Amino acid sequence: MSTSTQLDRASLQAADATDPLASFRDRFSLPEGVIYLDGNSLGPLPIGAAERAAEVINNQWAHGLIRSWNTAGWFDLPTRLGDTLSKLIGGNDGETVVTDTTSLNLFKALASAVRIQQQDAPTRRVILTERDNFPTDIYIAEGISDFLNSVNAETGTHYEIRLIDEDLSLERALDDSVAVVSLSHVNYRTGAMWDMEAVTAAAHKSGALIVWDLAHAAGAVPVDLNGANADYAVGCTYKYLNGGPGSPAFIWVNSRHQGRFWQPLTGWWSHASPFEMEESYTAANDVRRFLCGTQPITSMAMIECGLDVALDADIETVRAKSLSLADLFIALVRQRCGGFGLELVTPENHAERGSHVSFRHPEGYAIIQALTDRGVIGDYREPEVLRFGLTPLYLSFTDIWDAVEILRDVLEARDWDVPAYRTRHAVT
Amino acid sequence: MSTSTQLDRASLQAADATDPLASFRDRFSLPEGVIYLDGNSLGPLPIGAAERAAEVINNQWAHGLIRSWNTAGWFDLPTRLGDTLSKLIGGNDGETVVTDTTSLNLFKALASAVRIQQQDAPTRRVILTERDNFPTDIYIAEGISDFLNSVNAETGTHYEIRLIDEDLSLERALDDSVAVVSLSHVNYRTGAMWDMEAVTAAAHKSGALIVWDLAHAAGAVPVDLNGANADYAVGCTYKYLNGGPGSPAFIWVNSRHQGRFWQPLTGWWSHASPFEMEESYTAANDVRRFLCGTQPITSMAMIECGLDVALDADIETVRAKSLSLADLFIALVRQRCGGFGLELVTPENHAERGSHVSFRHPEGYAIIQALTDRGVIGDYREPEVLRFGLTPLYLSFTDIWDAVEILRDVLEARDWDVPAYRTRHAVT
Repeated sequence: MSTSTQLDRASLQAADATDPLASFRDRFSLPEGVIYLDGNSLGPLPIGAAERAAEVINNQWAHGLIRSWNTAGWFDLPTRLGDTLSKLIGGNDGETVVTDTTSLNLFKALASAVRIQQQDAPTRRVILTERDNFPTDIYIAEGISDFLNSVNAETGTHYEIRLIDEDLSLERALDDSVAVVSLSHVNYRTGAMWDMEAVTAAAHKSGALIVWDLAHAAGAVPVDLNGANADYAVGCTYKYLNGGPGSPAFIWVNSRHQGRFWQPLTGWWSHASPFEMEESYTAANDVRRFLCGTQPITSMAMIECGLDVALDADIETVRAKSLSLADLFIALVRQRCGGFGLELVTPENHAERGSHVSFRHPEGYAIIQALTDRGVIGDYREPEVLRFGLTPLYLSFTDIWDAVEILRDVLEARDWDVPAYRTRHAVT
Repeated sequence: MSTSTQLDRASLQAADATDPLASFRDRFSLPEGVIYLDGNSLGPLPIGAAERAAEVINNQWAHGLIRSWNTAGWFDLPTRLGDTLSKLIGGNDGETVVTDTTSLNLFKALASAVRIQQQDAPTRRVILTERDNFPTDIYIAEGISDFLNSVNAETGTHYEIRLIDEDLSLERALDDSVAVVSLSHVNYRTGAMWDMEAVTAAAHKSGALIVWDLAHAAGAVPVDLNGANADYAVGCTYKYLNGGPGSPAFIWVNSRHQGRFWQPLTGWWSHASPFEMEESYTAANDVRRFLCGTQPITSMAMIECGLDVALDADIETVRAKSLSLADLFIALVRQRCGGFGLELVTPENHAERGSHVSFRHPEGYAIIQALTDRGVIGDYREPEVLRFGLTPLYLSFTDIWDAVEILRDVLEARDWDVPAYRTRHAVT
């Protein structure tokens, strides 16, 4: 489908008719009258997930009770789901676990990388990330740094955070003080995507380790962690993987670090023999070293339903449709919503973007609210950014057409009565 | 009910008939033919919890999608559930959040206490716990200590763990090097209970802070954290609070530390303005400082159902019945199972025990398996310990009689074909 000429809805219906992913829409429960452009924040309910939860609750919990830790396979969920998820990110069996939250897993990965550098290159005490990273990625690095520095308040050997921004390129930032680089593969706000292989190589060449946050990448774009020779990765299961609200996150570690990596959240689930009740800690000699405590089974079990859908879809086909949807969205906004001040902040180059498209507008918050009221659900991110997730498994080309028509209606009407900016602290 | 004379089932039926908590059994879904003596490991399903999960999944998630973070109150779940749970542990509003796991919350509490001592008494570098504590409580302390010591591998200012055991009393262990005391209110294996008020006072007198692990106490025994003037507490919602498998844990902090305490898992949920997307960390000025990342909503929402039941029961009435059930259980085992080598490891003094009773037996693992096969579900804990949770909300006095009769049958039959000891690593 060309986006260089004037588009119309009929041509998009034709594109939908030949869409190889069209049937995946039936794998999700989506409300009538909604065009959901926020699957990169919370993916929709996969068909079967409610039944999976009911099975966990009414049979495994109510009837099996404590026995279900063994008989229903609850103990193995973190590694079993991890092995399944690993296939979507270029990982091998035994390299991924599903557990805890993305923030916590990032803490584990960064702390582990710092620890390896304490042994291999103790003068490296910089955690390098970027100013535009998702805030928790910066905050967690600060948490590690502050905690380690608290021991040495008076001495000069301090950990520090260095931020890549428009004044400091990755290349210039990578010097011999950098212990670990922490980047999001796809930026949460702009959709900009790093070249994982090239950046990983640059980090390694400089002597740093690298942690990739795949929150906005896993399930959305092809990811090949082993192909890129990455060190660690973390990510989210409730966005493009449709695991459910707040479903536990994942963490991946390259096999070459197995047996060596260490992280300080040394709960009993990471022990070599958790049920021996030993009185001192011995780390498991595998990826379970990234576990800590008991996981929320009901929320966790539903993840498998989302992963099943993702694994049934060819990721290259998903990527091709994602790019087509985004190209269409950008072209339609230009054609149909020109003159309303929407400024594209997502790179147009295919190699440099993920699966969402963002525009900046001074009244962005009000526009997103008005869109939501008319059934087009996008997302707003400070400052002034309207963010639209383009998820190929349940969006059609005509959905994009219809969404942009409604966006134009909203921009033409300008009849919102909410403030243009979100009120500080009020998440509404 | 006296337990000093010969007991019979009829007298226990009479006791059940006047049990003020008898009606609470109808608040739970329990399988037919099972006497569940493991509610201190995983509590049963409260009536209504399955419907609550279905509402979260089929309405809030499937229909509300991302909007439910606001419209369904997902954002407020950690603090709202925390305020509810606070009532059960002698906490005030704004002192408790429900989030993450007990192990992770223990990390936060210990790290926070260590940080305060770094400022107030920097020579205090000992984390004092007990050899018989639940292993994760020791392992987490080791994780903190190892992480901090990794900065100063060559210098002498090291953190260390000190263990109370039969050779080292709490009193002798409490010296001016102790930064923080970390104890379980009720021991997971023996059921032994510390005097929270006296031990807290002793810790404070020595200049240490104290963290209480309430995993086997919350919902089981009266707990008054503010009355005892404790500093921190953590605990579990899936045992006596019946929140569901792996439901998120809680953490409490005394108001006097609010605004000062700090913990290194500084994810965006602990930020003063999480949705402002600020590029550096500013901690929330309240208990939300103990939050980190996005929580598993389906598992979390069900916690409220268990808390509702717990709050409807008067804890002093619960405690009285718990002690009666345990006294009965101990008396019946002596009367009906004498000569089979069961050794009571739980203190008989009421003030010194929680709500479970444990016996040691060389073939403990096989006995627990045989009991489970006959519908009496207890638990086994290394080494050789048979552990029985006595939960007043859904157990009757005749349940205890029937359980002990089956225990006697098992001990008389001795027909098990499983190994007497659990095979190392095989959790079966």
